[in-house]
Amino acid sequence: MSYQDLGHYISVLEKEGKLVRVKREINKDRELMPLVRWQFRGLPEEKRKGFLFENVTNDKGRKFAMPVAVATHAASRELYALAMECKPEQIYENWARVLSHPIDPVMVDKAPVQEEVHMGDDLEQHRGLEEFPIPISTPGYDPAPFITAGCWVSKDPESGIRNLGTYRAHVKGLTRTGIQLAQHIGIHLAKARDQRCPLEVAIVIGGPPSVALVSTAKVPYEMDELAVAGAIGGEPLPLVKCKTVDLEVPAGAEIVLEGTLSSDSVEPEAPFGEYTGYMGYRIMSPILEIKCITHRKNPIYHAFISQFPPSESSKIRGIGREGSLYKFLKYECNIPGIMDVSIHEESGSGSWCVIRMKKTNYSHPWQALNCATGYSAAGFKVIVVVDEDIDPRDPDSVIWAISYGMQPHLDVRTVQGMLPGLDPSAGKPEQLQDESYLISSRGTSCLLIDATRKWAYPPVALPRQEIMEHSRKIWEELGLPELKPKRPWHGYSLGMWTQENEEEADLALKGEYLAAGDKLASGRRQL
Amino acid sequence: MSYQDLGHYISVLEKEGKLVRVKREINKDRELMPLVRWQFRGLPEEKRKGFLFENVTNDKGRKFAMPVAVATHAASRELYALAMECKPEQIYENWARVLSHPIDPVMVDKAPVQEEVHMGDDLEQHRGLEEFPIPISTPGYDPAPFITAGCWVSKDPESGIRNLGTYRAHVKGLTRTGIQLAQHIGIHLAKARDQRCPLEVAIVIGGPPSVALVSTAKVPYEMDELAVAGAIGGEPLPLVKCKTVDLEVPAGAEIVLEGTLSSDSVEPEAPFGEYTGYMGYRIMSPILEIKCITHRKNPIYHAFISQFPPSESSKIRGIGREGSLYKFLKYECNIPGIMDVSIHEESGSGSWCVIRMKKTNYSHPWQALNCATGYSAAGFKVIVVVDEDIDPRDPDSVIWAISYGMQPHLDVRTVQGMLPGLDPSAGKPEQLQDESYLISSRGTSCLLIDATRKWAYPPVALPRQEIMEHSRKIWEELGLPELKPKRPWHGYSLGMWTQENEEEADLALKGEYLAAGDKLASGRRQL
Repeated sequence: MSYQDLGHYISVLEKEGKLVRVKREINKDRELMPLVRWQFRGLPEEKRKGFLFENVTNDKGRKFAMPVAVATHAASRELYALAMECKPEQIYENWARVLSHPIDPVMVDKAPVQEEVHMGDDLEQHRGLEEFPIPISTPGYDPAPFITAGCWVSKDPESGIRNLGTYRAHVKGLTRTGIQLAQHIGIHLAKARDQRCPLEVAIVIGGPPSVALVSTAKVPYEMDELAVAGAIGGEPLPLVKCKTVDLEVPAGAEIVLEGTLSSDSVEPEAPFGEYTGYMGYRIMSPILEIKCITHRKNPIYHAFISQFPPSESSKIRGIGREGSLYKFLKYECNIPGIMDVSIHEESGSGSWCVIRMKKTNYSHPWQALNCATGYSAAGFKVIVVVDEDIDPRDPDSVIWAISYGMQPHLDVRTVQGMLPGLDPSAGKPEQLQDESYLISSRGTSCLLIDATRKWAYPPVALPRQEIMEHSRKIWEELGLPELKPKRPWHGYSLGMWTQENEEEADLALKGEYLAAGDKLASGRRQL
Repeated sequence: MSYQDLGHYISVLEKEGKLVRVKREINKDRELMPLVRWQFRGLPEEKRKGFLFENVTNDKGRKFAMPVAVATHAASRELYALAMECKPEQIYENWARVLSHPIDPVMVDKAPVQEEVHMGDDLEQHRGLEEFPIPISTPGYDPAPFITAGCWVSKDPESGIRNLGTYRAHVKGLTRTGIQLAQHIGIHLAKARDQRCPLEVAIVIGGPPSVALVSTAKVPYEMDELAVAGAIGGEPLPLVKCKTVDLEVPAGAEIVLEGTLSSDSVEPEAPFGEYTGYMGYRIMSPILEIKCITHRKNPIYHAFISQFPPSESSKIRGIGREGSLYKFLKYECNIPGIMDVSIHEESGSGSWCVIRMKKTNYSHPWQALNCATGYSAAGFKVIVVVDEDIDPRDPDSVIWAISYGMQPHLDVRTVQGMLPGLDPSAGKPEQLQDESYLISSRGTSCLLIDATRKWAYPPVALPRQEIMEHSRKIWEELGLPELKPKRPWHGYSLGMWTQENEEEADLALKGEYLAAGDKLASGRRQL
């Protein structure tokens, strides 16, 4: 099954018990995001769900005609897997597959997303962007609603190759927004500037879920994200021509904004709550002028909940980034022992990266560290390589690995020359839009840690597996509280353990430890 | 109220709902520790309790006359506070107080712990150590039962000043054990060797809880731990003279082993599951010969559950160490901004130290890092200083601070010259008992990280407090799952936020964000 559109996906979510449908009146600016926020600050991941708000208002007493969907794509890893139509443990291999085998989209003439078309005077009459219940993301700090789940489509002005990316859009007028530029659309805009014309763009809001998954992932520059979205769905994605710009958009989307992005002028934009957990600074950014809005007859407005991590936005970006880094290290860099890549979600899925591997020589961890450092200009702050028995998503497990797997003077290196992204430690933001505010002309830096064990270790100090399993039965028989076992919960060998060790432990279990004690006496030595 | 003895303390635990009394038959070697282990691998800290096993057996079908108490002193921070007779949040200031104001013990003639006295032939007839249900700690790996909660009393052979410390005792014979030597008793033993005589020792098992608290904490060498224990209880601790050695022990203890520790010979000892989470290596260690055992008529055998962290042993050592490091940094080193010290328990309370502080200049974090590095020869692997709004016990919060509070090339330093403790990354253990196995003649190393913010930051990107509180009411009204809020759950200022920012955010809440949008247009700039 491939999801035809957002409504189809939401109906599956509901069937799976993963949707909260809110019928009560909800103020889109004061109540909507804070309500969903609570599940990220107060519930364990497995209890998080998508939300659909059916009765949305604002402070002026307006009642919006359409519902708002939030946290539907990545409230948890389980929801992400549902959106990707696979099991959670298949996500990374699935990413490796779809990036290697894209399926080209197919053009159609008639599209649900063009059931209504507003342009010219009609656009003003329908109140432009105010037709939509765009929520305020961080009420009390944000100066406006921002479009958070808009997938920006644009083309390289020279090659014509399409790009899709999710960037925030600060709503400043009925038909005017800002943008926080990122790498690929930035290249398009620079080329448009060279040609002395604006950049045509279309913003897709609420496509089939595969569109949001590719739009938030790291896909190589010259690769068509809409073909990767097709591969996720397992069939060509139907596209339709836009009405006023030379771009194609998913025919099954809910809403599309068509317009041009200024290449010759910038305007103040933000502050906006960002993935770092801090309010993003006010910056100067290009201006989007919307020429045309098309939408379904009864669209669903779709938003991501972002800001302080963990959030839906850090989850969706993080998993996509983990998937492509996993593919890069394992298949492109040819490091066969790579088992897992985890980018710490609670720090915004951009700063703390843990690579789990089975090394077969001492160089593998450094090969992984060097490649992961070079993988992206916007670097991590810390990259750690751990052994296969460490859970890279459990900070306690990673700190344990760091504690007894490495020596700082031998196993830690600092590298410079990274782009800081929105990291506020990169420099005092006194001179905005200007790299001279950076603390270093070599950019920011990253700490590399090889926390793998350098030789055979004695076993993990927990009772043997069968002994723990037996005691668990007694635990349950005694009616003690329900256990949620954390790994490791039994001992295992790490290479340094002899036959004699094993025999002595077996004798001890039988109460025969004094015999071993006598043997020890024979090893006595005078000082 | 001061606890008179272990039984009194256990009755209070039971009254507080913090004791699991197990009446069913339990095999001390195969079942006892693994059952208690489950609560450390499968329950959140607040659900952990102390255990009292009333019907203890072994593989040979023996039924022991006495019960076994495990995890009673430090299954959780709450239990530790109960043992210390204070609230959890008062623990560190309490440590600062008792270390500054010890109360000297008082001698008594008649002691419960000497109701039964076994020496000479009588000692053999009562089966020596086999009288007691000493459990195997890590069944399947340990070669014997080890005494884990024994508080070793000894005196400096020159000054006569007492020391108390908790060291493992490998049971090798009816009246013979090993010891994992540590710093202070090691000094005593070295002085005894100079005098060509063995060291007299007494091992206290199951004293009033204050005795175990001081025995596992870091107390300065020439300070009498039993006087600090008195300060915890608020009154002089009653002591009694030992029967065969020139030492004094708590009169209210359950069991005391009296004997001598060899200063002229060593014997193989261990392996034993250790706080690092790995089996400790076999080492050469001094030999304890027990001359006399005294105990109450109906004693309780007391054991700590140690090994893979978190455990009772990492908790009790960790809190004691945090308490003395807190006192050292704040009062001895005179760094007024010190607010909290956390030593990561899940890595064995010895490797990952986080210092929370309110700095008033850029030097304070480095003052704290340098002093904490020098505080103990057996150093940490990583020390991090964080700002006051970071939760040092929540790894997610600390990783967030590291992610956006520091730049590795400016804010990280490595120092060498540390003692490794039982850290297996310190060197291949091919030459035991010999420092030449260390990877470096400068010892092991430690990573220092100043993760405090270096300038004013924009606010934390979460909705304002009153907005989050209002939404929580809606959450509850909708009958959504119970929240356990994690900090931060609302935004707050970090110095970089203007009056204009605030006004714009207020207008946005009222739906008046287009006015602000118009103002932004006036800031437009041609490129």
